[in-house]
Amino acid sequence: MSQLKGNAIFGQSGGPTSVINASAAGVIQEALKQTGVIGKVYGAAHGIKGILAEEFFDMAQEDPAELDLLRTTPSSALGSCRYKLKKAEDDDTDYKRLLEVFRKYDIRYFFYNGGNDSMDTCNKISKYMQRAGYECRVMGVPKTIDNDLWGTDHCPGFASAAKYIATSTMEVYLDARVYDTGMVTILEVMGRNAGWLTAATAIAAAKGHGPDLIYLPETDFDLDAFLADVKRIYDKEKKCIIAVSEGVRTKEGKYLPELVGELTKDAFGHAQMGGTASLLAGVVKDRLGCKIRAIEFSLLQRCAAHCASKTDVDESYLAGKTAVQVAVAGGTDQMVAFKRAPGKDYVCEIQLIPLSEVANTEKKVPREWINAAGNFVTQEYVDYVLPLIQGESSPPMVDGVPRFARLKKVLARK
Amino acid sequence: MSQLKGNAIFGQSGGPTSVINASAAGVIQEALKQTGVIGKVYGAAHGIKGILAEEFFDMAQEDPAELDLLRTTPSSALGSCRYKLKKAEDDDTDYKRLLEVFRKYDIRYFFYNGGNDSMDTCNKISKYMQRAGYECRVMGVPKTIDNDLWGTDHCPGFASAAKYIATSTMEVYLDARVYDTGMVTILEVMGRNAGWLTAATAIAAAKGHGPDLIYLPETDFDLDAFLADVKRIYDKEKKCIIAVSEGVRTKEGKYLPELVGELTKDAFGHAQMGGTASLLAGVVKDRLGCKIRAIEFSLLQRCAAHCASKTDVDESYLAGKTAVQVAVAGGTDQMVAFKRAPGKDYVCEIQLIPLSEVANTEKKVPREWINAAGNFVTQEYVDYVLPLIQGESSPPMVDGVPRFARLKKVLARK
Repeated sequence: MSQLKGNAIFGQSGGPTSVINASAAGVIQEALKQTGVIGKVYGAAHGIKGILAEEFFDMAQEDPAELDLLRTTPSSALGSCRYKLKKAEDDDTDYKRLLEVFRKYDIRYFFYNGGNDSMDTCNKISKYMQRAGYECRVMGVPKTIDNDLWGTDHCPGFASAAKYIATSTMEVYLDARVYDTGMVTILEVMGRNAGWLTAATAIAAAKGHGPDLIYLPETDFDLDAFLADVKRIYDKEKKCIIAVSEGVRTKEGKYLPELVGELTKDAFGHAQMGGTASLLAGVVKDRLGCKIRAIEFSLLQRCAAHCASKTDVDESYLAGKTAVQVAVAGGTDQMVAFKRAPGKDYVCEIQLIPLSEVANTEKKVPREWINAAGNFVTQEYVDYVLPLIQGESSPPMVDGVPRFARLKKVLARK
Repeated sequence: MSQLKGNAIFGQSGGPTSVINASAAGVIQEALKQTGVIGKVYGAAHGIKGILAEEFFDMAQEDPAELDLLRTTPSSALGSCRYKLKKAEDDDTDYKRLLEVFRKYDIRYFFYNGGNDSMDTCNKISKYMQRAGYECRVMGVPKTIDNDLWGTDHCPGFASAAKYIATSTMEVYLDARVYDTGMVTILEVMGRNAGWLTAATAIAAAKGHGPDLIYLPETDFDLDAFLADVKRIYDKEKKCIIAVSEGVRTKEGKYLPELVGELTKDAFGHAQMGGTASLLAGVVKDRLGCKIRAIEFSLLQRCAAHCASKTDVDESYLAGKTAVQVAVAGGTDQMVAFKRAPGKDYVCEIQLIPLSEVANTEKKVPREWINAAGNFVTQEYVDYVLPLIQGESSPPMVDGVPRFARLKKVLARK
């Protein structure tokens, strides 16, 4: 494969995670090492939007120690975006602009770190550049706490969120049982279409400190069955802990907040403010008359770098580093993915997936990993997730709190 | 002082914390060592309720390794209660019963771990036993994340919650700034009457990753001033992060959820479900029309043993251990309290406070530690809290998640 000399640009896209910056460190540090092949290493401000606006940073200007700290700094240090490119056939304005910017800065390597939409963006850009005859190697680096990316055993960011959720669920379990009075606790976990993260509360259950009931978006949510489940456990135990995905839907395909008027007696009509857990809490309180608490893990679950999985941090870094190595060696149009080697012990192998295959395909929790009643997950899920959350990663602590990376963000000269 | 031989009972009361079990370990392990003086060491199930019901555990039956694990196990391992004794003059039923139980089990040492109400309970019981001529040494061990106990520099449990809140606020700060679009984030922190915990978000601010505005219950909450504050910052920065205590009140003394009809256009009347942050989020969204997210730290902030302060854990253990040593040496009717030794370096000294003085007196954040506008705290607060959050404590991790204590809870023979 011919050597392609030029500059590289890297961008972060979509919702941040605890470890997306570990992948950033992997890409940036590896790219900076590729002297003689890669010249400038640019970091796009707010992903593709920064490239379109010619707002990107010269990463060589950063203090190497701060780049190291990216490994344990949550969220997207360069800024992120939710920007969906139109099909080039319908409107090629953005593509023309990207080509213009790539030409102007001699960008021959494009690394993009994100989820389904971002892989779609990568794929579209790569195909456009090829049609335009502009040689540029395009590699996707996966990222999503939702773990719903197709073609990879698991996704960077998922395991750290899972570890945080399992840990916090165990702690809340202990807290929610201290009184001898009745109490129902509902935990709301992120995941609009896939229940991988909500299912992580089953790790806590496997350790004896977890929920009684788990509801994922993969099965239809039936309110009557839910209330019967809760009542059965509550009547027996005086306590019931429930984990529910924000994305659970009725068999008609409606999210619970869409049903707010039907579900509650007084139709308060504040769906955008109340999440799934607080809505269900209101219903349970109305019907069962017990004390109830709704807890949303909210943003905390995707930025808790203080409780990250070492396995996840290392794999995320490796994914970024590998993307650069593959591209320099001639690879393009691929996403770095993970494959679990066969055998008893967990070994994570790298594989490369064509972007065209991964883009916009969602991977869900297999139905057979959910019990028949649709209110818990099976041991197969726990066996799947446990190796991913092994090892503790935490930022260096200074003065009792984390020391996160501080980038200078020196803008590249236009 | 004469040596008093007999049995000991220990109870946990009020809302749990990350480190209340560290104090339990201190009391129990020290009491078990006092052979020849203290015979049986009982742990009351659900505090005073367990004593009244003769439901308590024989702590000598526990595996010593599990008792060690209590140091890093959150929540109240023996169970807690919120049980307020009546004045003995009005109704002495409970007191008679307690005396009966104490006599039956030859309980001569009573250790109670809790906040303001629990110290009041301790005090009432001690005074009753004295009037009844029953010799029993009563010692209070302080506990509350709220840090509102009078007579002590700070309170076991507070610093670990503060450390968790500061850490999580820093992480949320990074997450909430990734997009180049506008966003207001409101963090709700526990504290009905005292703002010590909400103020801990100022630690995050001192490190450059914290809120723009902080509102405590110690000053009147003015909605118009609040909205003007938020608008001023949002107009300039496109981002605004606000920390608000659940206990903020208007100058008329009303908690915000009590004003739900007045504050929101559509008076949805769901005060018990919506907290202060989600209510304010609704108002800000209505008035400023920006994207907004309300995050409640909820129970997570008081049980996050995975992110506890080593200083707090050690001091909590010491408080429990000291209570036993003082009682065995003849002390009674006192609460173990902390005093900060003068000088630049933080040194925590033990002092003993008469229960009659501490009971039911609340300590608030001094007005001079809050800025004039009532929307932030001063450096004095940060200087006060920083030494308390130093050092990292985390449970031993097994299989990627915490290994918490598992007690056998062998009931004492009736």
